[in-house]
Amino acid sequence: MTRIAVFASGRGSNFEALVAAERAGVFPGEIVLLLSDQPNAGALEIAAAHDIEGRVIETAKRRGRIDPDSEALYVEACRGAGVEWICLAGFMRIIGQPLLSAFTDRIVNIHPSLLPSFPGLDAQRQAWEYGVRVSGCTVHLVDAGMDTGPIILQQAVSVMEGESAGQLASRILAQEHKAYPEALRRVLTGAWHREGRRINFQKTEGESA
Amino acid sequence: MTRIAVFASGRGSNFEALVAAERAGVFPGEIVLLLSDQPNAGALEIAAAHDIEGRVIETAKRRGRIDPDSEALYVEACRGAGVEWICLAGFMRIIGQPLLSAFTDRIVNIHPSLLPSFPGLDAQRQAWEYGVRVSGCTVHLVDAGMDTGPIILQQAVSVMEGESAGQLASRILAQEHKAYPEALRRVLTGAWHREGRRINFQKTEGESA
Repeated sequence: MTRIAVFASGRGSNFEALVAAERAGVFPGEIVLLLSDQPNAGALEIAAAHDIEGRVIETAKRRGRIDPDSEALYVEACRGAGVEWICLAGFMRIIGQPLLSAFTDRIVNIHPSLLPSFPGLDAQRQAWEYGVRVSGCTVHLVDAGMDTGPIILQQAVSVMEGESAGQLASRILAQEHKAYPEALRRVLTGAWHREGRRINFQKTEGESA
Repeated sequence: MTRIAVFASGRGSNFEALVAAERAGVFPGEIVLLLSDQPNAGALEIAAAHDIEGRVIETAKRRGRIDPDSEALYVEACRGAGVEWICLAGFMRIIGQPLLSAFTDRIVNIHPSLLPSFPGLDAQRQAWEYGVRVSGCTVHLVDAGMDTGPIILQQAVSVMEGESAGQLASRILAQEHKAYPEALRRVLTGAWHREGRRINFQKTEGESA
């Protein structure tokens, strides 16, 4: 069983979906640690409710990157818990070199758009305002850029006639809750390799599109 | 019946799909004119085979924009044929002010990616090399930018494990042949209006997602 840490800044709905999927055996991993930069993150309560160790590691800056000293504490906490993979789930910080070097190609993020369209904040509203007819979500490996890493899985979501940006965001979120566990299943099960920025999976039984 | 001109530079597979859909009554329009900047375009033969007037209007420049004198001839040809809407189908020229002013919000283009991802040339290969898991095609109104106009319809196409860029392009093309007539049906049937760069359709009977 691969030991996994989740980083979350907010209410933790994707974290909760990952925990539920783990308990249902969707992917061969165990979520052993929840780290947050926000003492009031709802994700901490979800961790407590599921007997998962939750810790707050605050950072010197209010937003953006983690300061290097704090980032070293994140690395330490993960190593101390025997963590092999990290899942970002609404973690509102840009990951820097300390974590990227310690967990190269083993940090995963989910983003609420079909990247490379609409990186950054408020992606669902960006898409809605652009007037796309198809948006969705993207699970990707994290690199030094903002939402630029190699893509593991994308799920398309059609924009409904007349819906608000908020309604679109809710429907994308529902797909995120399925896509994230499925993406973990893919990278933790069977063989894959990177070819440039493309991820090639060897076909496995039970693969769904 | 709305009178439609198609502009094509190449073999004309989207033109042919539009003609077939017109004959099948998919959209309430009549394709009355095919204009090409390339004397050897296969689209001209398709026009001839379907008794559609085909004309070549060459342009001074080898690629990019149409020179203004030639663009005036395009406008004239369309006006002379009583054309109300223009469909670009593999027309390898950037449309300029003469056509945009004469046919504001009545020029349509199809692009082989989910815009705003991968505008410009060789979009299918761009998407394949980026490693997206979902690409597709976009039918949009033409504005002064490169593949930036308001979106009418998008169709997602999943990238298959192990397929080449060429295989992906073929599968997207098959969807283009369905999406383009359907997009025309939407703008020629029932009411719609622009709100910023979003197109809002009033719901009509028989609407498919």
